[in-house]
Amino acid sequence: MAARPITFLSDYGHDDEFVGVCRAVIARIAPGTSVVDLTHGIRRHAVADGAAVLARALPYTAPGVHLAVVDPGVGSERRGVAVLTGEDDRILVGPDNGLLSPAAERLGGTAAAVDISLSPLRLEPISATFHGRDLFAPVAAHLALGAALGDAGEEIEPSSLVSLPATGPRLEGATVVAHVVLVDRYGNAALDLEHERLAKTGLRLGRPVRVQVPGSVREAPFVLTFSDAEPGELVVYEDSYRALALAVNRGSAAAELDLQPGSEVVLSPA
Amino acid sequence: MAARPITFLSDYGHDDEFVGVCRAVIARIAPGTSVVDLTHGIRRHAVADGAAVLARALPYTAPGVHLAVVDPGVGSERRGVAVLTGEDDRILVGPDNGLLSPAAERLGGTAAAVDISLSPLRLEPISATFHGRDLFAPVAAHLALGAALGDAGEEIEPSSLVSLPATGPRLEGATVVAHVVLVDRYGNAALDLEHERLAKTGLRLGRPVRVQVPGSVREAPFVLTFSDAEPGELVVYEDSYRALALAVNRGSAAAELDLQPGSEVVLSPA
Amino acid sequence: MAARPITFLSDYGHDDEFVGVCRAVIARIAPGTSVVDLTHGIRRHAVADGAAVLARALPYTAPGVHLAVVDPGVGSERRGVAVLTGEDDRILVGPDNGLLSPAAERLGGTAAAVDISLSPLRLEPISATFHGRDLFAPVAAHLALGAALGDAGEEIEPSSLVSLPATGPRLEGATVVAHVVLVDRYGNAALDLEHERLAKTGLRLGRPVRVQVPGSVREAPFVLTFSDAEPGELVVYEDSYRALALAVNRGSAAAELDLQPGSEVVLSPA
Repeated sequence: MAARPITFLSDYGHDDEFVGVCRAVIARIAPGTSVVDLTHGIRRHAVADGAAVLARALPYTAPGVHLAVVDPGVGSERRGVAVLTGEDDRILVGPDNGLLSPAAERLGGTAAAVDISLSPLRLEPISATFHGRDLFAPVAAHLALGAALGDAGEEIEPSSLVSLPATGPRLEGATVVAHVVLVDRYGNAALDLEHERLAKTGLRLGRPVRVQVPGSVREAPFVLTFSDAEPGELVVYEDSYRALALAVNRGSAAAELDLQPGSEVVLSPA
Repeated sequence: MAARPITFLSDYGHDDEFVGVCRAVIARIAPGTSVVDLTHGIRRHAVADGAAVLARALPYTAPGVHLAVVDPGVGSERRGVAVLTGEDDRILVGPDNGLLSPAAERLGGTAAAVDISLSPLRLEPISATFHGRDLFAPVAAHLALGAALGDAGEEIEPSSLVSLPATGPRLEGATVVAHVVLVDRYGNAALDLEHERLAKTGLRLGRPVRVQVPGSVREAPFVLTFSDAEPGELVVYEDSYRALALAVNRGSAAAELDLQPGSEVVLSPA
Repeated sequence: MAARPITFLSDYGHDDEFVGVCRAVIARIAPGTSVVDLTHGIRRHAVADGAAVLARALPYTAPGVHLAVVDPGVGSERRGVAVLTGEDDRILVGPDNGLLSPAAERLGGTAAAVDISLSPLRLEPISATFHGRDLFAPVAAHLALGAALGDAGEEIEPSSLVSLPATGPRLEGATVVAHVVLVDRYGNAALDLEHERLAKTGLRLGRPVRVQVPGSVREAPFVLTFSDAEPGELVVYEDSYRALALAVNRGSAAAELDLQPGSEVVLSPA
């Protein structure tokens, strides 16, 4: 049986050997297995950022084993888990700190889950500070090779998994109170207002939008793409994951409006 | 039939999931296909930089499908194209903004080209801002699997492809007016004066060179390699792609002489 | 016969195409061969940093061909070498400047070595400044395919290989004089005091440690993991490679104590 493909996301960055050693551990256990690095550029310890990127990216990946490590609590009491999704039989592997929950939710919910903290598939001696290498990567590799979920750990109640505080846009008449979910390297800020929900608001492609953030009110055209705007112009657009987003053409919306993940943005027809 | 290998170059950087999602799309369509990342560190929107790096790197790669995305005009009227080269049956895939043209020229010219803007091989719904994921990566993956060029889009005249404004060195007697093509992370500046042309100038290995840039005239030895120079010394050398280049040993020639791609550099025997 | 897997470590960074072109050269010679990038984030020209990372990482990798390039002397008289280790029949390939020696020592010493400076397996014409592409990558690829060590170069005495100046901790009664080996992107500083040696000191998990660096004396708990400390607190811990290390929880020990590789750190029970 061919191994299932693996994807890998983390906040390890590329300055050190963390990613490389995890990949080496996988290659040693499961030679020839495909590993796609989704990104290792998640901000250090930013669990919510990692969770958002994972949930957006996974629908584009082949179903397989999806390793994710953003783990400020490594070595503490937090559990390690492997989670089977309701759709596609995907398996998510990582810390039980909410990192995996938005992705699981988007992929049909959690069909089953195991606590892998003491997995027999881990490397020994296990370190207290590098569970990516010693726990998550080897468990992911064995699962890719076909190990059963039950071989990786003890079954737990899906409802016991940690999830992130739910946020979502609030509709107040013609006004939407939304929140920044992610800021990319270009300073584009994606909001928690997705395509389906957008249709219920008064915001429409081609019509100007009033954008209010603490200390600033701006008007922005709702465009299809950056090239419909002047350089330096603030725009509202549906990003490539079909979420409403703010951008400054050839500039940074995040810098200009002082936006971080979690920032509140109030939108209404102008 | 084995899939053809893919190479991938972009300005996406490694902070976000852009590269990873494109690779995931390729892996989903063409599992097991080799993908070599040439670099994703091209300066944002710097089409000429990307074009220069692609043209230099491709001769070192196995012939296959060569995906390149530096695409400031994404979502505008600019076309997406796939280009068959005159040598090696390589296929270049990317935006029709000049990014591919120096590489095609170096590889025997363009034997055939198709407009893939509305390719039946694209992902649906196609986004307005992420054609790497939705258009270029899936087309490249299908071509690597053996799809015919005509399956990817409508045939177009090779002469209709966008090319970058041609620059080149001017010989004025013993003096050469050259231009910076690329600056690397070490601040080494490669010029548009290549080995074959260099022979027609008065510049010779081992003999000092007069280097003139706006606001500064310097003398530099023409050395074989950095270790032939003192730390901090400005040198002229043939770089590893056989183009004349400026470097400061253990320093940055670009910073010291204020050089960017396009900067004019006047050289003559000292 | 299946190709042996390759690992690759360098100081090339990800801004330029250096890594990608080396990987392309490998893929061209040895298509389908597994290549794991350990890291390309070694500080520029920091041979000792690269040597330390390589020695720590290799025990986690499958035995194969291990390419490493941190090469400030490229183009000079320094040799290129391929080294067979005493354990696992691993082959290390890189410049003979000490980069490979700690890894070889950790893996059973050097069983045999060849000078590959004029290897018949190199690319022609060989450049003076990019031996990663023209010499080390192609030699590694051919060795991975099964070429004999003797096909890659001329046999040399293992004792003639360059090694780095040996440092190690000094025990002076209850006091240990140790040195920083590596600083990671989080500012965690690993010392040359490893698990086995630590047992011979008076330092014990759970007991406070007096940490003395030039200009500063601090007291730090000896903890199992960061999460046992307060944010901002200096701690001593055994890192994931079982070396004693200094960290500031959610901060940077290196910045706070002004530590670089080579810095002396004096430790004693508080």
